[in-house]
Amino acid sequence: MSQLHLLSPRGFKAGAAEAGLKSTPAPDVAILVCDVPASAAAVFTTNKVLAAPIKIGREHVAGGKLRGIVVNSGNANACTGRRGETDAHEMCRLAAGEIGCDPGEILPSSTGIIGQHLPMDKIRFGIAQSAKDLGDSPGHARRFCDAILTTDTRRKAAAARFRFRRQWVTVAGVCKGSGMIGPRLAPHATMLAYLTTDAKISPIILRRILADTAELSFNAVTVDDQTSTNDTAAILASGLGAGIESGRGIKSFAAAMKEVCQALAFKIAEDGEGATKVVEIHVRGAKTQADANLMARAVANSPLVKCAMNGNDPNWGRIVVAAGLCGAAFDPDRAELSLQNTIVFKSGRPMPFSAPAVSRSLAAKKVVVDLNCRLGKSSATVWTCDLSKDYVTINADYHT
Amino acid sequence: MSQLHLLSPRGFKAGAAEAGLKSTPAPDVAILVCDVPASAAAVFTTNKVLAAPIKIGREHVAGGKLRGIVVNSGNANACTGRRGETDAHEMCRLAAGEIGCDPGEILPSSTGIIGQHLPMDKIRFGIAQSAKDLGDSPGHARRFCDAILTTDTRRKAAAARFRFRRQWVTVAGVCKGSGMIGPRLAPHATMLAYLTTDAKISPIILRRILADTAELSFNAVTVDDQTSTNDTAAILASGLGAGIESGRGIKSFAAAMKEVCQALAFKIAEDGEGATKVVEIHVRGAKTQADANLMARAVANSPLVKCAMNGNDPNWGRIVVAAGLCGAAFDPDRAELSLQNTIVFKSGRPMPFSAPAVSRSLAAKKVVVDLNCRLGKSSATVWTCDLSKDYVTINADYHT
Repeated sequence: MSQLHLLSPRGFKAGAAEAGLKSTPAPDVAILVCDVPASAAAVFTTNKVLAAPIKIGREHVAGGKLRGIVVNSGNANACTGRRGETDAHEMCRLAAGEIGCDPGEILPSSTGIIGQHLPMDKIRFGIAQSAKDLGDSPGHARRFCDAILTTDTRRKAAAARFRFRRQWVTVAGVCKGSGMIGPRLAPHATMLAYLTTDAKISPIILRRILADTAELSFNAVTVDDQTSTNDTAAILASGLGAGIESGRGIKSFAAAMKEVCQALAFKIAEDGEGATKVVEIHVRGAKTQADANLMARAVANSPLVKCAMNGNDPNWGRIVVAAGLCGAAFDPDRAELSLQNTIVFKSGRPMPFSAPAVSRSLAAKKVVVDLNCRLGKSSATVWTCDLSKDYVTINADYHT
Repeated sequence: MSQLHLLSPRGFKAGAAEAGLKSTPAPDVAILVCDVPASAAAVFTTNKVLAAPIKIGREHVAGGKLRGIVVNSGNANACTGRRGETDAHEMCRLAAGEIGCDPGEILPSSTGIIGQHLPMDKIRFGIAQSAKDLGDSPGHARRFCDAILTTDTRRKAAAARFRFRRQWVTVAGVCKGSGMIGPRLAPHATMLAYLTTDAKISPIILRRILADTAELSFNAVTVDDQTSTNDTAAILASGLGAGIESGRGIKSFAAAMKEVCQALAFKIAEDGEGATKVVEIHVRGAKTQADANLMARAVANSPLVKCAMNGNDPNWGRIVVAAGLCGAAFDPDRAELSLQNTIVFKSGRPMPFSAPAVSRSLAAKKVVVDLNCRLGKSSATVWTCDLSKDYVTINADYHT
């Protein structure tokens, strides 16, 4: 299904422009437009510090209807006071003018450096150019993708479709995210994800499915555990396809959403700043769901575990330490830990294994850590990446 | 007072030996002995995974009396099952045999790699040699210091004294810690700290002062937020000096303890794995003490903040993000943030500042970050270090 893209669902167009907000020549302003009023839902960061576009976007999506999204990269419009809000409002007004809708039907989004005012002359130029560029070709989808990237090294897109009432229903999405990645999205990340679908679905059901899906995808990826001021996942449903109201339709739609969002989350881990591999942490047999999440996240965020993964080092003690320090119920005497399917620790005791062989198995693009707590029935999966010298290079020099 | 050392308080001797536990030739087994039964207190890690010596040491110190400490570096004796406990018991028995006391009067300690059994032949040799080496010279104190180091690049010691009832009361301490540093010590890190004093003081008061002091020193230092399986801070009071029972005596003693422990904590941050500088985070005006601690720790542990510090990059947005994501009450519209005394963010808005000048001021051995929340009266100080490429080098290759 590689031919499916963000603009495959019926009713969507996108346009992008190079407005000069990023230091390298690349698209940095874009708009996504639905031909008709779309059923819409979005989840936003839980950071106490909200970027200006988040404050405004929250209000605009509250009614469950949107016509489009306007986004820029290179500047987060966060910690920018009242002027930042004025600027975000203007972005909505300009996009709405181009589309011919109400500014309240536009979701604004920004990502990039925090604490600097938006260069509004460039933004104005970018929005006007994006509107001229509108189309629904694969190239338009790719340019929209490019326009939202910052330290990302590649574009991230995924799509899925299913048959329902003799029609194809398509769910497609794009996202960006490489650093400052530890989203905790709630219904009220600088991860940005935009999804489109042609399903006909009510905003209330859409919001619930998006929130549930985010929990198992975007909220389960961490690069550095830093919940940004701008994290956003939004979906627009054009309603030009099959009606999804209950039962099998909702189940199929939720499955497609999960497939798309988990694929996007995996791509974020894969493209984490400086990453050489994805580390997939499975915690099983936890006492509660909260414990499972806590432990998986603690292991995924341990800089010692992440460095060991970078060095293909089967230093499993660091994994046990992380599980033990996070406050979750954990009993080393019952636990079992395996790395790439080799059991290294069981019932409180180290298990004999070939360190060179396990080290070789860690030199893969994807490493699976499996921790069975044997305390209950809850489980969680979190994706992260290793911690390399390149992470330090990227983040010691991003600003100055 | 550079002449004061761990063995300056009356009644203490130490001995160390090279037993071959570490890959480089250096002392790695040591004993600290009090000539008389000492009033004793200790605080240990709150990780759910407890190293064998912690389980046994907790019981041994419970009665408030100890004659000595036996310690090895190079192997943590953690995640080693029942055999690990047998080995820790044997360490106590051997040390007690050399000193002529009960094994229950010995506190065992280990630090190093997790998940490997202690090489007991080397440990036995080391304890016997340490006993032959016993003495109270500055050289003996230095060798004890060396014997507890792992990835540390230098020894860490501090001492203070005060006049009380026409006598000098001395408090001295040594510690180790460079990586896996995020101690959360509680009365029931792989930071190890050992303190001696000649004060005559009850174990109950000693324990309370140690717990209070740990909160403002060892528990306020973080390199990588990893609470180890072995973290320990212990104090032995020989009682050969002035009696400290109440009022001014306790106040002076607590002040000396704070001076020594904060100096040791600072040295841990200074010698954090790969560190080029200490970052001191002050959070003021927080709504509650828990909020102040949470925020200071979140800023100190942000890999993005730590990388920015490594690059002398005044990327203050990352500090605000960390304060906002930790769950503490925080309102960016009221907050004020300064870096090395330059205000960079105030009342929700970026403040104009010279980036090159602030960057130059960040190129110091100690950087002060001051965040005033203007929400209440609570404050906290946490010490950390920057995150450098050397941290990755050290931790990608420590084991294999």
